[in-house]
Amino acid sequence: MADKGLNDLFKDTLRDVYYAEKQVLKSLPKMERAAHAEEVKQAFRTHLKQTEGQIERLEKVFGMIDLTPRGKKCEAIDGILKEGDSVAEDYADTAALDAGLIAAAQAVEHYEITRYGTLRRWAKMLGMDEAASLLEQTLTEESETDDLLTQIADAGANKEALAEAKGDS
Amino acid sequence: MADKGLNDLFKDTLRDVYYAEKQVLKSLPKMERAAHAEEVKQAFRTHLKQTEGQIERLEKVFGMIDLTPRGKKCEAIDGILKEGDSVAEDYADTAALDAGLIAAAQAVEHYEITRYGTLRRWAKMLGMDEAASLLEQTLTEESETDDLLTQIADAGANKEALAEAKGDS
Repeated sequence: MADKGLNDLFKDTLRDVYYAEKQVLKSLPKMERAAHAEEVKQAFRTHLKQTEGQIERLEKVFGMIDLTPRGKKCEAIDGILKEGDSVAEDYADTAALDAGLIAAAQAVEHYEITRYGTLRRWAKMLGMDEAASLLEQTLTEESETDDLLTQIADAGANKEALAEAKGDS
Repeated sequence: MADKGLNDLFKDTLRDVYYAEKQVLKSLPKMERAAHAEEVKQAFRTHLKQTEGQIERLEKVFGMIDLTPRGKKCEAIDGILKEGDSVAEDYADTAALDAGLIAAAQAVEHYEITRYGTLRRWAKMLGMDEAASLLEQTLTEESETDDLLTQIADAGANKEALAEAKGDS
Protein backbone atom coordinates (compact mmCIF):
# COMPACT_ATOMS: atom_id res chain seq x y z
CA MET A 1 0.00 0.00 0.00
CA ALA A 2 1.29 3.44 -0.92
CA ASP A 3 1.87 5.85 1.93
CA LYS A 4 -0.89 8.39 2.44
CA GLY A 5 -0.39 12.12 2.48
CA LEU A 6 -2.16 15.43 2.89
CA ASN A 7 -4.02 14.99 -0.41
CA ASP A 8 -5.68 11.84 0.99
CA LEU A 9 -6.65 13.61 4.20
CA PHE A 10 -8.01 16.49 2.14
CA LYS A 11 -10.19 14.17 0.03
CA ASP A 12 -11.47 12.22 3.04
CA THR A 13 -12.31 15.38 4.95
CA LEU A 14 -13.96 16.95 1.91
CA ARG A 15 -16.20 13.89 1.67
CA ASP A 16 -16.86 14.05 5.41
CA VAL A 17 -18.04 17.66 5.29
CA TYR A 18 -19.99 17.05 2.07
CA TYR A 19 -21.94 14.30 3.84
CA ALA A 20 -22.34 16.62 6.84
CA GLU A 21 -23.76 19.49 4.76
CA LYS A 22 -26.22 17.15 3.05
CA GLN A 23 -27.45 15.92 6.44
CA VAL A 24 -27.73 19.50 7.70
CA LEU A 25 -29.78 20.35 4.60
CA LYS A 26 -32.23 17.57 5.52
CA SER A 27 -32.29 18.57 9.16
CA LEU A 28 -32.89 22.33 8.86
CA PRO A 29 -36.54 22.12 7.69
CA LYS A 30 -37.28 19.89 10.72
CA MET A 31 -35.62 22.41 13.01
CA GLU A 32 -37.57 25.23 11.39
CA ARG A 33 -40.86 23.40 11.93
CA ALA A 34 -39.93 22.65 15.55
CA ALA A 35 -38.91 26.24 16.42
CA HIS A 36 -41.41 28.51 18.11
CA ALA A 37 -40.35 32.10 17.43
CA GLU A 38 -40.50 33.55 13.95
CA GLU A 39 -36.93 34.96 14.12
CA VAL A 40 -35.58 31.50 14.96
CA LYS A 41 -37.53 29.92 12.09
CA GLN A 42 -36.20 32.66 9.82
CA ALA A 43 -32.59 32.01 10.91
CA PHE A 44 -32.96 28.32 10.04
CA ARG A 45 -34.52 29.19 6.66
CA THR A 46 -31.69 31.59 5.87
CA HIS A 47 -29.11 29.00 6.83
CA LEU A 48 -30.80 26.43 4.59
CA LYS A 49 -30.27 28.73 1.58
CA GLN A 50 -26.67 29.27 2.69
CA THR A 51 -26.12 25.53 3.05
CA GLU A 52 -27.24 25.00 -0.57
CA GLY A 53 -24.57 27.46 -1.67
CA GLN A 54 -21.97 25.80 0.53
CA ILE A 55 -22.74 22.43 -1.04
CA GLU A 56 -22.25 23.99 -4.49
CA ARG A 57 -18.86 25.32 -3.40
CA LEU A 58 -17.84 21.87 -2.18
CA GLU A 59 -18.89 20.43 -5.55
CA LYS A 60 -16.64 22.98 -7.26
CA VAL A 61 -13.74 21.89 -5.03
CA PHE A 62 -14.41 18.23 -5.92
CA GLY A 63 -14.28 19.29 -9.57
CA MET A 64 -10.90 20.97 -9.07
CA ILE A 65 -9.38 17.64 -8.02
CA ASP A 66 -11.29 15.68 -10.66
CA LEU A 67 -13.44 13.82 -8.19
CA THR A 68 -17.15 13.08 -8.42
CA PRO A 69 -18.80 14.67 -5.37
CA ARG A 70 -19.51 11.89 -2.91
CA GLY A 71 -20.12 11.95 0.84
CA LYS A 72 -18.47 9.75 3.43
CA LYS A 73 -20.52 8.83 6.46
CA CYS A 74 -19.68 11.28 9.22
CA GLU A 75 -20.55 9.93 12.65
CA ALA A 76 -19.81 13.30 14.21
CA ILE A 77 -22.56 15.20 12.40
CA ASP A 78 -24.96 12.28 12.81
CA GLY A 79 -24.39 12.47 16.60
CA ILE A 80 -24.68 16.26 16.71
CA LEU A 81 -27.94 16.23 14.73
CA LYS A 82 -29.35 13.42 16.89
CA GLU A 83 -28.80 15.62 19.92
CA GLY A 84 -30.74 18.38 18.17
CA ASP A 85 -33.61 15.94 17.58
CA SER A 86 -33.58 15.01 21.27
CA VAL A 87 -33.82 18.67 22.29
CA ALA A 88 -36.75 19.19 19.90
CA GLU A 89 -38.47 16.21 21.52
CA ASP A 90 -37.55 16.76 25.18
CA TYR A 91 -38.37 20.47 25.10
CA ALA A 92 -41.37 20.43 22.74
CA ASP A 93 -43.96 22.99 23.86
CA THR A 94 -41.71 24.42 26.57
CA ALA A 95 -40.40 27.96 26.97
CA ALA A 96 -36.83 26.62 26.62
CA LEU A 97 -37.34 25.00 23.22
CA ASP A 98 -35.86 27.74 21.03
CA ALA A 99 -32.88 28.29 23.34
CA GLY A 100 -32.13 24.56 23.11
CA LEU A 101 -32.58 24.44 19.34
CA ILE A 102 -30.25 27.40 18.87
CA ALA A 103 -27.59 25.75 21.05
CA ALA A 104 -27.92 22.57 18.96
CA ALA A 105 -27.57 24.57 15.74
CA GLN A 106 -24.45 26.23 17.13
CA ALA A 107 -22.91 22.80 17.77
CA VAL A 108 -23.46 22.10 14.05
CA GLU A 109 -21.83 25.42 13.11
CA HIS A 110 -18.80 24.68 15.26
CA TYR A 111 -18.34 21.26 13.68
CA GLU A 112 -18.36 22.92 10.27
CA ILE A 113 -16.06 25.71 11.45
CA THR A 114 -13.39 23.23 12.56
CA ARG A 115 -13.66 21.18 9.35
CA TYR A 116 -13.61 24.14 6.96
CA GLY A 117 -10.77 25.71 8.96
CA THR A 118 -8.71 22.56 8.54
CA LEU A 119 -9.63 22.07 4.87
CA ARG A 120 -8.76 25.66 4.03
CA ARG A 121 -5.29 25.33 5.60
CA TRP A 122 -4.67 22.03 3.84
CA ALA A 123 -5.85 23.47 0.50
CA LYS A 124 -3.36 26.34 0.86
CA MET A 125 -0.52 23.94 1.65
CA LEU A 126 -1.47 21.83 -1.36
CA GLY A 127 -1.23 24.95 -3.56
CA MET A 128 -4.98 24.94 -4.25
CA ASP A 129 -5.53 28.65 -3.79
CA GLU A 130 -8.90 28.80 -5.53
CA ALA A 131 -10.23 25.94 -3.41
CA ALA A 132 -8.83 27.61 -0.29
CA SER A 133 -10.70 30.79 -1.22
CA LEU A 134 -14.03 28.93 -1.65
CA LEU A 135 -13.53 27.12 1.65
CA GLU A 136 -12.70 30.41 3.34
CA GLN A 137 -15.95 31.96 2.08
CA THR A 138 -17.93 29.15 3.67
CA LEU A 139 -15.89 29.35 6.87
CA THR A 140 -16.76 33.04 7.15
CA GLU A 141 -20.45 32.30 6.61
CA GLU A 142 -20.45 29.59 9.28
CA SER A 143 -18.81 31.93 11.81
CA GLU A 144 -21.30 34.68 10.98
CA THR A 145 -24.20 32.25 11.40
CA ASP A 146 -22.81 31.19 14.79
CA ASP A 147 -22.63 34.86 15.89
CA LEU A 148 -26.12 35.57 14.56
CA LEU A 149 -27.51 32.61 16.51
CA THR A 150 -25.89 33.95 19.70
CA GLN A 151 -27.54 37.33 19.09
CA ILE A 152 -30.95 35.77 18.45
CA ALA A 153 -30.63 33.64 21.58
CA ASP A 154 -29.63 36.59 23.76
CA ALA A 155 -32.31 38.85 22.30
CA GLY A 156 -35.21 36.47 22.76
CA ALA A 157 -34.98 32.72 23.19
CA ASN A 158 -32.79 32.71 26.30
CA LYS A 159 -34.92 35.38 27.96
CA GLU A 160 -38.07 33.43 27.28
CA ALA A 161 -36.49 30.31 28.78
CA LEU A 162 -35.26 32.35 31.74
CA ALA A 163 -38.69 33.78 32.49
CA GLU A 164 -39.98 30.24 32.84
CA ALA A 165 -37.01 29.23 35.01
CA LYS A 166 -37.76 32.14 37.36
CA GLY A 167 -41.46 31.32 37.36
CA ASP A 168 -40.56 27.82 38.57
CA SER A 169 -38.57 28.88 41.57
CA MET B 1 -45.86 18.25 33.29
CA ALA B 2 -44.31 21.51 34.45
CA ASP B 3 -42.92 23.73 31.74
CA LYS B 4 -39.15 23.58 31.31
CA GLY B 5 -36.86 26.57 31.46
CA LEU B 6 -33.29 27.67 31.14
CA ASN B 7 -32.31 25.89 34.39
CA ASP B 8 -33.36 22.56 32.83
CA LEU B 9 -31.37 23.25 29.66
CA PHE B 10 -28.41 24.24 31.82
CA LYS B 11 -28.53 20.97 33.80
CA ASP B 12 -28.96 18.82 30.69
CA THR B 13 -26.10 20.54 28.89
CA LEU B 14 -23.88 20.35 31.97
CA ARG B 15 -24.46 16.58 32.04
CA ASP B 16 -23.82 16.38 28.30
CA VAL B 17 -20.44 18.09 28.55
CA TYR B 18 -19.55 16.14 31.72
CA TYR B 19 -20.08 12.91 29.79
CA ALA B 20 -18.11 14.37 26.88
CA GLU B 21 -15.11 15.31 29.05
CA LYS B 22 -15.06 11.83 30.62
CA GLN B 23 -15.01 10.24 27.16
CA VAL B 24 -12.26 12.61 26.04
CA LEU B 25 -10.27 11.64 29.13
CA LYS B 26 -10.49 7.98 28.06
CA SER B 27 -9.67 8.80 24.46
CA LEU B 28 -6.58 11.00 24.90
CA PRO B 29 -4.19 8.22 26.00
CA LYS B 30 -5.19 6.25 22.88
CA MET B 31 -4.53 9.29 20.71
CA GLU B 32 -1.19 9.83 22.42
CA ARG B 33 -0.15 6.24 21.75
CA ALA B 34 -1.28 6.52 18.13
CA ALA B 35 0.56 9.79 17.44
CA HIS B 36 3.95 9.70 15.78
CA ALA B 37 5.76 12.96 16.62
CA GLU B 38 6.81 13.72 20.18
CA GLU B 39 5.30 17.25 20.13
CA VAL B 40 1.92 15.81 19.16
CA LYS B 41 2.11 13.19 21.93
CA GLN B 42 3.08 15.96 24.33
CA ALA B 43 0.11 18.12 23.27
CA PHE B 44 -2.27 15.23 23.99
CA ARG B 45 -0.61 14.58 27.38
CA THR B 46 -0.93 18.25 28.32
CA HIS B 47 -4.56 18.31 27.29
CA LEU B 48 -5.23 15.20 29.39
CA LYS B 49 -4.04 17.06 32.50
CA GLN B 50 -6.16 20.04 31.48
CA THR B 51 -9.20 17.82 30.98
CA GLU B 52 -8.85 16.49 34.54
CA GLY B 53 -8.99 20.08 35.80
CA GLN B 54 -11.97 20.84 33.56
CA ILE B 55 -13.84 17.85 35.00
CA GLU B 56 -13.15 19.15 38.51
CA ARG B 57 -14.57 22.54 37.54
CA LEU B 58 -17.71 20.88 36.19
CA GLU B 59 -18.07 18.98 39.47
CA LYS B 60 -17.89 22.30 41.33
CA VAL B 61 -20.66 23.68 39.12
CA PHE B 62 -22.80 20.59 39.84
CA GLY B 63 -22.19 21.28 43.56
CA MET B 64 -23.38 24.87 43.16
CA ILE B 65 -26.78 23.66 41.99
CA ASP B 66 -26.88 20.80 44.52
CA LEU B 67 -26.64 18.07 41.92
CA THR B 68 -24.55 14.93 42.04
CA PRO B 69 -22.20 15.00 39.03
CA ARG B 70 -23.62 12.65 36.46
CA GLY B 71 -23.08 12.41 32.74
CA LYS B 72 -25.75 12.15 30.07
CA LYS B 73 -24.92 10.17 26.96
CA CYS B 74 -23.73 12.60 24.32
CA GLU B 75 -24.00 11.17 20.83
CA ALA B 76 -22.12 14.14 19.42
CA ILE B 77 -18.87 13.46 21.27
CA ASP B 78 -19.24 9.71 20.69
CA GLY B 79 -19.43 10.38 16.95
CA ILE B 80 -16.55 12.86 16.97
CA LEU B 81 -14.30 10.45 18.89
CA LYS B 82 -15.26 7.56 16.59
CA GLU B 83 -14.03 9.63 13.66
CA GLY B 84 -10.74 10.12 15.49
CA ASP B 85 -10.46 6.34 15.94
CA SER B 86 -11.07 5.87 12.21
CA VAL B 87 -8.30 8.32 11.33
CA ALA B 88 -5.90 6.51 13.68
CA GLU B 89 -6.78 3.26 11.92
CA ASP B 90 -6.97 4.45 8.29
CA TYR B 91 -3.76 6.49 8.53
CA ALA B 92 -1.71 4.23 10.83
CA ASP B 93 1.95 4.26 9.77
CA THR B 94 1.42 6.97 7.17
CA ALA B 95 3.00 10.41 6.94
CA ALA B 96 -0.45 11.98 7.30
CA LEU B 97 -1.32 10.32 10.62
CA ASP B 98 -0.46 13.23 12.93
CA ALA B 99 -2.13 15.81 10.70
CA GLY B 100 -5.31 13.71 10.78
CA LEU B 101 -5.14 13.15 14.55
CA ILE B 102 -4.70 16.86 15.17
CA ALA B 103 -7.70 17.68 12.96
CA ALA B 104 -9.75 15.10 14.92
CA ALA B 105 -8.64 16.63 18.23
CA GLN B 106 -9.64 20.08 16.96
CA ALA B 107 -13.14 18.78 16.21
CA VAL B 108 -13.32 17.73 19.88
CA GLU B 109 -12.14 21.19 20.99
CA HIS B 110 -14.76 22.91 18.86
CA TYR B 111 -17.53 20.77 20.31
CA GLU B 112 -16.40 21.77 23.78
CA ILE B 113 -16.03 25.43 22.76
CA THR B 114 -19.64 25.62 21.60
CA ARG B 115 -20.96 23.84 24.71
CA TYR B 116 -18.95 25.87 27.23
CA GLY B 117 -19.80 29.07 25.34
CA THR B 118 -23.50 28.30 25.66
CA LEU B 119 -23.25 27.14 29.30
CA ARG B 120 -21.34 30.26 30.31
CA ARG B 121 -24.00 32.54 28.78
CA TRP B 122 -26.81 30.58 30.42
CA ALA B 123 -25.02 30.62 33.80
CA LYS B 124 -24.74 34.42 33.61
CA MET B 125 -28.43 34.78 32.76
CA LEU B 126 -29.30 32.48 35.67
CA GLY B 127 -27.30 34.76 37.99
CA MET B 128 -24.66 32.06 38.63
CA ASP B 129 -21.65 34.33 38.30
CA GLU B 130 -19.19 31.95 39.98
CA ALA B 131 -20.24 29.08 37.72
CA ALA B 132 -19.98 31.39 34.70
CA SER B 133 -16.44 32.26 35.72
CA LEU B 134 -15.42 28.58 36.02
CA LEU B 135 -16.98 27.79 32.65
CA GLU B 136 -15.22 30.79 31.12
CA GLN B 137 -11.84 29.50 32.37
CA THR B 138 -12.41 26.19 30.64
CA LEU B 139 -13.66 27.92 27.50
CA THR B 140 -10.44 29.92 27.35
CA GLU B 141 -8.35 26.75 27.79
CA GLU B 142 -10.22 24.96 25.01
CA SER B 143 -9.69 27.88 22.61
CA GLU B 144 -6.01 28.01 23.51
CA THR B 145 -5.67 24.26 22.93
CA ASP B 146 -7.33 24.65 19.54
CA ASP B 147 -4.86 27.41 18.60
CA LEU B 148 -1.91 25.37 19.89
CA LEU B 149 -2.99 22.39 17.78
CA THR B 150 -3.12 24.62 14.70
CA GLN B 151 0.42 25.80 15.40
CA ILE B 152 1.72 22.26 15.92
CA ALA B 153 0.04 21.12 12.72
CA ASP B 154 1.43 24.00 10.68
CA ALA B 155 4.93 23.63 12.19
CA GLY B 156 5.30 19.91 11.58
CA ALA B 157 2.49 17.44 11.00
CA ASN B 158 0.97 19.14 7.94
CA LYS B 159 4.41 19.58 6.36
CA GLU B 160 5.23 15.93 6.90
CA ALA B 161 1.94 14.91 5.30
CA LEU B 162 2.55 17.37 2.45
CA ALA B 163 6.00 15.98 1.68
CA GLU B 164 4.42 12.59 1.15
CA ALA B 165 1.67 14.09 -0.98
CA LYS B 166 4.25 15.74 -3.22
CA GLY B 167 6.29 12.54 -3.38
CA ASP B 168 3.20 10.78 -4.72
CA SER B 169 2.58 13.10 -7.61
